[in-house]
Amino acid sequence: MRICLTIAYDGTDYCGWQIQDNAVTVEGTLTQALHQLLDGDIEVIGASRTDSGVHAMGNVAVFDTDTRIPPEKIAIALNRYLPRDIRVQRSQQVPGDFHPRYCDSIKTYEYVILNTRTEIPVRSRYTCHVWQPLDTSLMREAAALLEGTHDFSAFCSAGSQVKSKVRTIYEAVIEERAVFGGSEGKEIVIRVSGNGFLYNMVRIIAGTLIEIGQGRREIGTVEEALHTGRRSAAGPTAPAQGLMLMGIRYEKGDC
Amino acid sequence: MRICLTIAYDGTDYCGWQIQDNAVTVEGTLTQALHQLLDGDIEVIGASRTDSGVHAMGNVAVFDTDTRIPPEKIAIALNRYLPRDIRVQRSQQVPGDFHPRYCDSIKTYEYVILNTRTEIPVRSRYTCHVWQPLDTSLMREAAALLEGTHDFSAFCSAGSQVKSKVRTIYEAVIEERAVFGGSEGKEIVIRVSGNGFLYNMVRIIAGTLIEIGQGRREIGTVEEALHTGRRSAAGPTAPAQGLMLMGIRYEKGDC
Repeated sequence: MRICLTIAYDGTDYCGWQIQDNAVTVEGTLTQALHQLLDGDIEVIGASRTDSGVHAMGNVAVFDTDTRIPPEKIAIALNRYLPRDIRVQRSQQVPGDFHPRYCDSIKTYEYVILNTRTEIPVRSRYTCHVWQPLDTSLMREAAALLEGTHDFSAFCSAGSQVKSKVRTIYEAVIEERAVFGGSEGKEIVIRVSGNGFLYNMVRIIAGTLIEIGQGRREIGTVEEALHTGRRSAAGPTAPAQGLMLMGIRYEKGDC
Repeated sequence: MRICLTIAYDGTDYCGWQIQDNAVTVEGTLTQALHQLLDGDIEVIGASRTDSGVHAMGNVAVFDTDTRIPPEKIAIALNRYLPRDIRVQRSQQVPGDFHPRYCDSIKTYEYVILNTRTEIPVRSRYTCHVWQPLDTSLMREAAALLEGTHDFSAFCSAGSQVKSKVRTIYEAVIEERAVFGGSEGKEIVIRVSGNGFLYNMVRIIAGTLIEIGQGRREIGTVEEALHTGRRSAAGPTAPAQGLMLMGIRYEKGDC
């Protein structure tokens, strides 16, 4: 049977999701734990290959097994073999042809900016600190331009091998929330949902919106980037630690 | 002149506040940074000697210096010599007789319980995970009993050398908030403000309230603990990582 896992992790100490020979990765650690629990070589298929240092509340992965452990109990059993910074939130049986990357889905990411005069240590693992006050109304206006179906080539780092760089963003919004403990300043959340994301896409969107919020970049450059597809028309890649894969929703019945 | 610092830190990697010979502490790290910045031996007086693993948004410390750096710029200068998990939020000149421990103050602590079925890695450094659903109305009722002036001997770990164990708690409240990312369950915050706290006092309060929320302990045991002063009448000491010193407010004009 095919088991689907929903996995949360603190990506700080991992070289990203994807299994590698000489580095500690989330997929590698998960594969090891499955090997210990189910006593056999198990191949994991992950939904999102998050980068080094990127966090997740709900990445998704599947594997096939003939274990007699009830599907929904696998999460608890597996967590005993995992380090504390990876926790399987849920396990369930899915149809044998369910594929976490090829089945249609909506992925939601959040990029969090700590916009305070001074860094706050208990937030620094999960936010990108920007001390200059950011103009969120400019950021909001720019984010709205990204919504819809576009060629996002300008928002993709070199090294990507996908053929089409056309993706649909259903939502790109800016939220503000109070800083933990009520300190001066605010946290600014960039929330982006879409049917797929290119290599570093959300971090480049964040880097572009930060520069727009700082007043160092015109909103028009977003349209230019979308039209020309030139990477240099978009902003820099914002640091990994501000990014979190919030969750993946699969469209019913398509797999 | 006497300089007062407001300091935030992630306590995970420190053996508490107080300087020690063979351990990395917040006070020790701060003293070293001051030595590098101001080029002389500087003695720091801290307000709260937080335990190993306890965090702070606003601990307070003073030191004397004849530096020509403007008082309010010392924070920025000092942060250059500090690791990222310690950040001076503010620096200001205070009267020469201001003492962060002897001057009357109100300290506020928060103890955060992650009350979800499964741990959430991006919260586990800053919360204590309890998977059984907690009854917050029972916890609220019990917390209210702690407000006022009492002998808190039962809420003090062995090893304390203070003479009087009478303290005043101005506020002991329970708040609930959504779990990050909207997962099932909730975060429960125990917020306690008072004129002083004994050794491990907030963590013992938290341990007691958790057992009450689990239905494993009667509310009446809180009254018994306050009346008898017996440590065994209160609950266990809850783990350090859930605790955060939020801030210290000094009463005006008393120093």
